[in-house]
Amino acid sequence: MAELDVGVGIIGLGNVGSGTLRILAENADQISLKLGFRLNVEVVCSRRVEEKILPPQLAHVRRTRDWREVVSDPRVEIVAELVGGTDVAAQIIDAAIENGKSVVTANKELMAWRGAEIWERAIARGINLAMEASVAGGIPIHAVLREGISGDRITALYGILNGTSNYILTEMEQYNRPFEEALAEAQRLGYAEADPSADIDGWDARSKLAILAALAFGERIIPSDIYTEGIRRIRPVDFQYAHQLRHTIRLLCTARQTPEGLLLSVRPALIPQSTILASVRGAYNAVWVRGQYGHDTFYYGQGAGPLPTGVAVVSDLMRVAREIRRGSPERVSPFAHERLGEYEPIPITKQRRPFYLRFRVNDRPGILAALASILARRQISVEAVLQLPCESKRDLPFVIILEPSPESAVRDALAEMEQLDFLVEPPLALPIEPGL
Amino acid sequence: MAELDVGVGIIGLGNVGSGTLRILAENADQISLKLGFRLNVEVVCSRRVEEKILPPQLAHVRRTRDWREVVSDPRVEIVAELVGGTDVAAQIIDAAIENGKSVVTANKELMAWRGAEIWERAIARGINLAMEASVAGGIPIHAVLREGISGDRITALYGILNGTSNYILTEMEQYNRPFEEALAEAQRLGYAEADPSADIDGWDARSKLAILAALAFGERIIPSDIYTEGIRRIRPVDFQYAHQLRHTIRLLCTARQTPEGLLLSVRPALIPQSTILASVRGAYNAVWVRGQYGHDTFYYGQGAGPLPTGVAVVSDLMRVAREIRRGSPERVSPFAHERLGEYEPIPITKQRRPFYLRFRVNDRPGILAALASILARRQISVEAVLQLPCESKRDLPFVIILEPSPESAVRDALAEMEQLDFLVEPPLALPIEPGL
Repeated sequence: MAELDVGVGIIGLGNVGSGTLRILAENADQISLKLGFRLNVEVVCSRRVEEKILPPQLAHVRRTRDWREVVSDPRVEIVAELVGGTDVAAQIIDAAIENGKSVVTANKELMAWRGAEIWERAIARGINLAMEASVAGGIPIHAVLREGISGDRITALYGILNGTSNYILTEMEQYNRPFEEALAEAQRLGYAEADPSADIDGWDARSKLAILAALAFGERIIPSDIYTEGIRRIRPVDFQYAHQLRHTIRLLCTARQTPEGLLLSVRPALIPQSTILASVRGAYNAVWVRGQYGHDTFYYGQGAGPLPTGVAVVSDLMRVAREIRRGSPERVSPFAHERLGEYEPIPITKQRRPFYLRFRVNDRPGILAALASILARRQISVEAVLQLPCESKRDLPFVIILEPSPESAVRDALAEMEQLDFLVEPPLALPIEPGL
Repeated sequence: MAELDVGVGIIGLGNVGSGTLRILAENADQISLKLGFRLNVEVVCSRRVEEKILPPQLAHVRRTRDWREVVSDPRVEIVAELVGGTDVAAQIIDAAIENGKSVVTANKELMAWRGAEIWERAIARGINLAMEASVAGGIPIHAVLREGISGDRITALYGILNGTSNYILTEMEQYNRPFEEALAEAQRLGYAEADPSADIDGWDARSKLAILAALAFGERIIPSDIYTEGIRRIRPVDFQYAHQLRHTIRLLCTARQTPEGLLLSVRPALIPQSTILASVRGAYNAVWVRGQYGHDTFYYGQGAGPLPTGVAVVSDLMRVAREIRRGSPERVSPFAHERLGEYEPIPITKQRRPFYLRFRVNDRPGILAALASILARRQISVEAVLQLPCESKRDLPFVIILEPSPESAVRDALAEMEQLDFLVEPPLALPIEPGL
């Protein structure tokens, strides 16, 4: 069996790297039974590799601080790039491919921006590439899209792809906590970084959606194709209004085919409480896929964490090792089919949706008339006006629900509303997603 | 490109076969882009093939009533066995493997009983085998277990795997419909057969669980290893009591590792309303997987239907075609690892669970005392007694909740209780599943 064994080099011993090593060490027997050969960790690399405590089964493994030693090690057939970021990671992957090593990566940012190009180079060099861990750590959504439902023609994909934001939103929802307090709690629990912008402003989710949309639609999609808006403006009162409408609010990632093209967005949205997506609470992730033939399927699991993400890395190592031993390098990129023309990204302003508009006003007569006339001038119809009891006349929240309207017209109306002197802050506009 | 194309023969043009052909015809361009070559349907077979209407793109395809012509056709590299049942289907698969054809099957019964053996023959003959469509049609759970989370060590798998039963149960739950009426409606909608036994007595779900448990635990598991109980005895009043306990009732498929071995069951059980499994309503299926490293993941979709199941068949055809062109036959069976000894099936009576006991009695003094003393003699503790308002003294339902107790002791107690003359029918006992 030994001559079949596949040598692995691990670069990056942070959360994901340490989870990966633990699984490779503890679960080695079952991994070998499933593969018919062993995965051998030949070398590990980290900037502070001397401080790292490895699992006892791997204590003897060679350690280095220089990633170049990993990508040039003749015993290494697969390089796991687990350092994150885009600079060094890109150099590592480029060098590994150059040296004919297969690559497993957990790097969402790099794959979102350069995945199509990296995949092309991997195919040209005849190696294997895998990136299950780059999106929704514990959910094997790449295996689902590339293999499980590859025969379907996907029409829409919705995701809750940032666990930190989802934790903050569901804390606000369940305990009526202010945003700042829920964020501080997320930071205390280690879900959010000291600088939380990547999570709460939607940039992390945007990279993940770029990858999933590329896989789902076979298109070259880059993060800047995606309209992105974070959750900083959501307040507990928005959940109270949403519940009145039998909806909730999530940071929703959307890739949706329309007759005009592909709509891509990461933004807080109202979704019905009855949809299974609404039951995704805390730091969990989920993906909802609608196919023309298979209809709706839904996938749910932990979005991050050393061990769930480690499972994704180890499963990728197994898949790649199997393909190396079968002598079957990548032949078709999951990103870049010839363009069929159906899935060209289009601006978010082209969509038509019902909208939730929440205002905070310094109360006085004539407010509704002023707002309604701005909407009326743009042919936007009001479906409902909601106002929960409130004590403050100086900062009074209320909500207008719009019938399905072009987002471009709604934005024009919002820009005009922002000039009104009775507003405490600019209006908050959230789309209402139907039919999930 | 043409010399790379893979020839396919379809045997069986019922629901699944016609869905498969429709997807192969309509989605041919996208399938070719994803594969880098075409899947060509070379021949279709059905007992009444002359009556079948094929998609216009496939109208010219050769038709036969004799499956032997398909498995011996030199242009056919993959045989799709979509006839169901175990007799002819087994002959078809055996002959296909014998002739060196790869096989895609949707046959749960055959794979549940003979999957391990068929897989061994496929490996010995050097062909590829796939069976995504055999369980939970629209959910790509095989891809998940074999690839997506293959690095994890699975500790438990729960499923709702029979859409008909789930439809009947959720109709009873939502509309307070009697069992017989919900069953008749399921038959009217085409979910249930004229003889509904396979669905409502749990046999269909049992075959599916046998396959999933084999994949999840790498064991040889056959359907008769699985304790099986159907839903005929569930009544709307059971949902009323379950809701009082913030639970609901589903036909739950369970494969759960315990220190003693693997517990396998298909039976109605109480599950918390807060679990995402409880939100599976109507004819949907779902699978919940708990891994030692990846923790909980959840998969949801349509369990049956020509097109969702057709997506599974087409995705399998694509995977097998890819592997044929890569020259990589099956090497390791997903069923039969060397036995690690951890996953030996054990009798259901060895489990310890809280139980829900529902009685229907002809009311008189002393009933609770009689029941309680039977329980007390077996050291079974009562956690609660529930009684909803009821007009009939002659057929009065009430419920006893047991603290976690060995199922063997509970069964002994039930056997003794059945002798009591105040019971209108034998007590109904359902386990309460915690911590999903």
